[in-house]
Amino acid sequence: MADQMTDSARQMYSEDLASQTLGIEVSRAEPGAAVASMTVRANQCNGLGVCHGGLIFTLADTAMAFATNAGGGRAFATNAEIDFVAAARTGDVLTAECRMIVVRGKVGISDTTVKNQEGTTIAVFRGRTLATRS
Amino acid sequence: MADQMTDSARQMYSEDLASQTLGIEVSRAEPGAAVASMTVRANQCNGLGVCHGGLIFTLADTAMAFATNAGGGRAFATNAEIDFVAAARTGDVLTAECRMIVVRGKVGISDTTVKNQEGTTIAVFRGRTLATRS
Amino acid sequence: MADQMTDSARQMYSEDLASQTLGIEVSRAEPGAAVASMTVRANQCNGLGVCHGGLIFTLADTAMAFATNAGGGRAFATNAEIDFVAAARTGDVLTAECRMIVVRGKVGISDTTVKNQEGTTIAVFRGRTLATRS
Amino acid sequence: MADQMTDSARQMYSEDLASQTLGIEVSRAEPGAAVASMTVRANQCNGLGVCHGGLIFTLADTAMAFATNAGGGRAFATNAEIDFVAAARTGDVLTAECRMIVVRGKVGISDTTVKNQEGTTIAVFRGRTLATRS
Repeated sequence: MADQMTDSARQMYSEDLASQTLGIEVSRAEPGAAVASMTVRANQCNGLGVCHGGLIFTLADTAMAFATNAGGGRAFATNAEIDFVAAARTGDVLTAECRMIVVRGKVGISDTTVKNQEGTTIAVFRGRTLATRS
Repeated sequence: MADQMTDSARQMYSEDLASQTLGIEVSRAEPGAAVASMTVRANQCNGLGVCHGGLIFTLADTAMAFATNAGGGRAFATNAEIDFVAAARTGDVLTAECRMIVVRGKVGISDTTVKNQEGTTIAVFRGRTLATRS
Repeated sequence: MADQMTDSARQMYSEDLASQTLGIEVSRAEPGAAVASMTVRANQCNGLGVCHGGLIFTLADTAMAFATNAGGGRAFATNAEIDFVAAARTGDVLTAECRMIVVRGKVGISDTTVKNQEGTTIAVFRGRTLATRS
Repeated sequence: MADQMTDSARQMYSEDLASQTLGIEVSRAEPGAAVASMTVRANQCNGLGVCHGGLIFTLADTAMAFATNAGGGRAFATNAEIDFVAAARTGDVLTAECRMIVVRGKVGISDTTVKNQEGTTIAVFRGRTLATRS
């Protein structure tokens, strides 16, 4: 939680109990770009023995939220899709890096890639956000 | 966790620490259909004051996992997308109902709708799974 | 082009040179639902010997456009995805049936299924439209 | 149709009647990357007066097909989504540039951006392909 965050992002993180509870940290958040990371816990794995895909999505979604709102506006995710490329396991450190690729009026489209500590791509995510105030 | 679950699904749930930890319950799981639900906790809300979209995705993804694996096979999610239609807040009871719409070889495509306690649609989700053994 | 179309839809079809040129016919168009069909021509097949997936998408997209605009408003597609389930070949008669599943303000989400003359599912399509006037 | 194409791609284009009929040209095709372009004709526009979204998808899908098959294998599209960012009109020259972003076993994920002659982004497309022989 160092220096690469806007004040708005810092404020937003302090109120984001969901991300805090899941162990998600945000290390960078500026308008149009953000980085969030999470170390997979045993209780984040599913009945198949791997990190629940929903939590990988959640990590990516958090990165998108910070990239979208770091400037102080308010934008909500309207739609996103994710491809699960490789499994993550307990102890893996996952890092999601988001960057906006299109901004058109109130709509933003962003791409997020989730990698593990070895640089292996775990998931790719594309999402859309709608600004409700700027 | 009553009678509408196969033995395979019951076993899978008992090992699914992620879903258990998030408070997700599975009330029905048979090959091709499943129902999962979750009451939104304060610590599942984000900095915008609403349930983190990632956890709504996680609920839907759990429903898909049970619909896909209830028969005793092993299938992984490969890709999914979600549309966030309405916000959910602390105390809301969300129910995700999944049904397979296409099965072609090892690939399954399923649709999941997430509603709140008033029947309002919170999200729609479409996902793809790949069977690794049947 | 019989009686199951609104006047708005009939007018829209008369101006839709793209659909006409591709041999797409619209047999039903009312607010929230539409049916479009197309017989696959040899010159609609690709280098793999099957109907170009883009044209299957186009058929589904046309059905969505008519389901969305049949009431006389103006809505544009903003985003859609398609799963290609089975191949279509020259002479196959493809029918796309669209129905709106969610309407929220100016945004509509609809599902379209494309089948061939034997009832085999060729593709499933989910799209989003944004109304610019109603 | 110059020098930046493999022999496999050249052969594939010669058999791709769909792309030829629509006026799609492929100017580059090597394993993992391809460029296709199309000048929008009046009869490719819809009842809203703009290029049919399905044909923009078709252009992107063609670029993906060539990026995927340029090496001489055989891969089919299984799923793709598109965001329509700006409208295209008669006479616009659209160029779709595709690059693979993930290859995992037989599955490839690729991103394609469609721009007009002024460099304005018209659409972004992400698709998945499955190799049936390599």
